[in-house]
Amino acid sequence: MSQRLDEARDTLLELMATQRAVRRLRTDPLPDDVLGRILKAGALAPSGGNVQPWRVVVVRDAQVRKAIGDLYRPQWAKYGAGSRKGLQALQGDARAKQERMLAAADYLGEHMGDAPVIFVVCFNPNHMAITDSDLGRASVVGGGSVYPAVQNMMLAARAEGVGCVLTTLLCFEEQAMKSLLAIPADWHTCGVIPMGYPERGGYGPTSRRPVAKLAFENRWGDPVNLT
Amino acid sequence: MSQRLDEARDTLLELMATQRAVRRLRTDPLPDDVLGRILKAGALAPSGGNVQPWRVVVVRDAQVRKAIGDLYRPQWAKYGAGSRKGLQALQGDARAKQERMLAAADYLGEHMGDAPVIFVVCFNPNHMAITDSDLGRASVVGGGSVYPAVQNMMLAARAEGVGCVLTTLLCFEEQAMKSLLAIPADWHTCGVIPMGYPERGGYGPTSRRPVAKLAFENRWGDPVNLT
Repeated sequence: MSQRLDEARDTLLELMATQRAVRRLRTDPLPDDVLGRILKAGALAPSGGNVQPWRVVVVRDAQVRKAIGDLYRPQWAKYGAGSRKGLQALQGDARAKQERMLAAADYLGEHMGDAPVIFVVCFNPNHMAITDSDLGRASVVGGGSVYPAVQNMMLAARAEGVGCVLTTLLCFEEQAMKSLLAIPADWHTCGVIPMGYPERGGYGPTSRRPVAKLAFENRWGDPVNLT
Repeated sequence: MSQRLDEARDTLLELMATQRAVRRLRTDPLPDDVLGRILKAGALAPSGGNVQPWRVVVVRDAQVRKAIGDLYRPQWAKYGAGSRKGLQALQGDARAKQERMLAAADYLGEHMGDAPVIFVVCFNPNHMAITDSDLGRASVVGGGSVYPAVQNMMLAARAEGVGCVLTTLLCFEEQAMKSLLAIPADWHTCGVIPMGYPERGGYGPTSRRPVAKLAFENRWGDPVNLT
């Protein structure tokens, strides 16, 4: 490391602590070198057997972006309506925060195609050892060879000051997305990431659960004991 | 950021570029503050709807670690035998590298229970919107709300100089793992991460595909054009 490890560690945690979903994006293009470093971060991620069973279609062409935006708009409209119903259960600050999130998500719903760059993340299950496919419950393990790369790219975007957010809603339009981007039959889509410089404040502190609510020690339910 | 953004960016990419799978781990314990920062990194990760539908059981108890090691040993023996067959197709450097990896994986197969800390990552599909569950192909989207947190924890471990590797082989022993750790019926396991300081060199450069093999522009197969 060119930096002292304790400084690198603090930098990393600071980047992670400010990795907000950024849904209001400016339309001006991203520089090639910035985009190159974001992609490089993805390429560096670990995957099962080091197979890297993912690809990304980087969409910069305005017509293709518009077509993606047109597919996304009705999907968000439908999904957002469901999210809005959940508002009634919330009060005060929690409600205000959720309303701000939904306003930003509505903006993205209308403007996805205006983001200067859209990543479409693809995967091939034939290149994965999906160890939880026959357990009679939802399988997630295939994602273990894709989403670390997605997270690397999103952390790199954050470090570049480039706003982005992951949406998986366009899986509902997978056939249309595959036709649009000429994705082969044995590859599938698992995420779309619009990217651009933030229209507003962009990155900043996030609201996440504390470690005490996420981690147990030795058995489920026992608090993790870190002095 | 307390650092200039371009320095933070370089630090991040350097951490990612050296995030090796570390399979030979020393047995001395990890300090609580180190473990706390690794867990914090996981807690900071984004997830669908910010729901954070994952938990981690941090196993430090020697008996529980031994029990996990006993479950892992035969699973690796079986899986490793398959990997070893693939060696015959390789030549020269690629073969030597794969042989080194398998030797380290065999070591972990024997010594999983000796790692001072084992993370068992759990998820609850009832708290996820799995948008690709009805597409007639392998579903991975649930992983999008879990493996970003896993990657955050593994990057934080790398920044701490703590070795680790993700294995999903213990999904084949999910019922035994759930009994051992008292995991509730509606939560499932999706990864096990042994952690400890590296026995040997630990972190360093990795072999990953170049961006040109992973990214396309505007449509599948067209090279991404970054000057």
